[in-house]
Amino acid sequence: MTVKNPWQRLGSKLIYSNPWITVREDDVITPGGRPGIYGVVETRIATGVVALTEAGEIYLVGQYRYPVDEYSWEIPEGGSEVGEDPMVTAKRELREETGLEADSWEPLGGEIHLSNCFSSERGFLYLARGLHQGAAEPDHTEELQVQKTPFVECLAMVDRGEIKDSLTVIAVLRTARLLGMRSA
Amino acid sequence: MTVKNPWQRLGSKLIYSNPWITVREDDVITPGGRPGIYGVVETRIATGVVALTEAGEIYLVGQYRYPVDEYSWEIPEGGSEVGEDPMVTAKRELREETGLEADSWEPLGGEIHLSNCFSSERGFLYLARGLHQGAAEPDHTEELQVQKTPFVECLAMVDRGEIKDSLTVIAVLRTARLLGMRSA
Repeated sequence: MTVKNPWQRLGSKLIYSNPWITVREDDVITPGGRPGIYGVVETRIATGVVALTEAGEIYLVGQYRYPVDEYSWEIPEGGSEVGEDPMVTAKRELREETGLEADSWEPLGGEIHLSNCFSSERGFLYLARGLHQGAAEPDHTEELQVQKTPFVECLAMVDRGEIKDSLTVIAVLRTARLLGMRSA
Repeated sequence: MTVKNPWQRLGSKLIYSNPWITVREDDVITPGGRPGIYGVVETRIATGVVALTEAGEIYLVGQYRYPVDEYSWEIPEGGSEVGEDPMVTAKRELREETGLEADSWEPLGGEIHLSNCFSSERGFLYLARGLHQGAAEPDHTEELQVQKTPFVECLAMVDRGEIKDSLTVIAVLRTARLLGMRSA
């Protein structure tokens, strides 16, 4: 298997930057040997948490996602600060969005590349168990809804296409495999 | 459940455009009522195909993904032309990357939002069966490798985190559910 990078980067210029994304355009030689450009969107690392209760429920957060112009139910998610361990991010996001802390944290499968054609975004998922309400109150606005939902219902929402967020879809399907659940 | 868009868009300016992505920055009023900006990356619709043989193999395509700087094994994928039915895209991409045509096409689950924090990118997956070699030869460069792989091995690659592309991970996990396969 070829693993050597067949692209050559001749130069790179900054196109745009805000606190969440940076867009650069590279001058490249393509794998076919022709000069070209490659526009790349750089982002923070994305994290997501399946917070699973002993009764087999997980926490979903509902919010309006501006870029897709749709309301979306998702697991608690958030972006890492530069250099931050993604699990630390995940713990913070869970606490901020639900007020929960957890005794047990483990990776839920490996790294995800969310959209590798144009973006360097990487995602990491975690399974949190042994949940208890933390000291801090959730820091969410009224536009964020939090709902404890039976996992089987979340899985049905994924199967029916009602949950569309890629990290949440992957997290729910991975959890279903962990729990040994077959399709309905 | 709130479904009304709590964001107000006051204006929008084009930041960058190439044949694959367009970046715009909107002036907004946030759900909390404060003025702000939102940078949004617009892309073509993404499609992916699980091409499943009667012997239970699927086709994987290997290529170097420049934005993440890694070699990646994925199902055949490609972006739609404007206004194109994503299934038409999927059929073309399968033919171009593998030379295959299929008698049976069906959606493999619902729409995916690949990275809804900053991108409007939507993905659609298909399951193709009844495969046969088409008249056209694959139009791929030497940098694209095509490999017919037992589905159980693809599933193991997903479980081990060796397949990282989000659409491929979702496609393989959905196919595993369809085929009624439990975790190893």
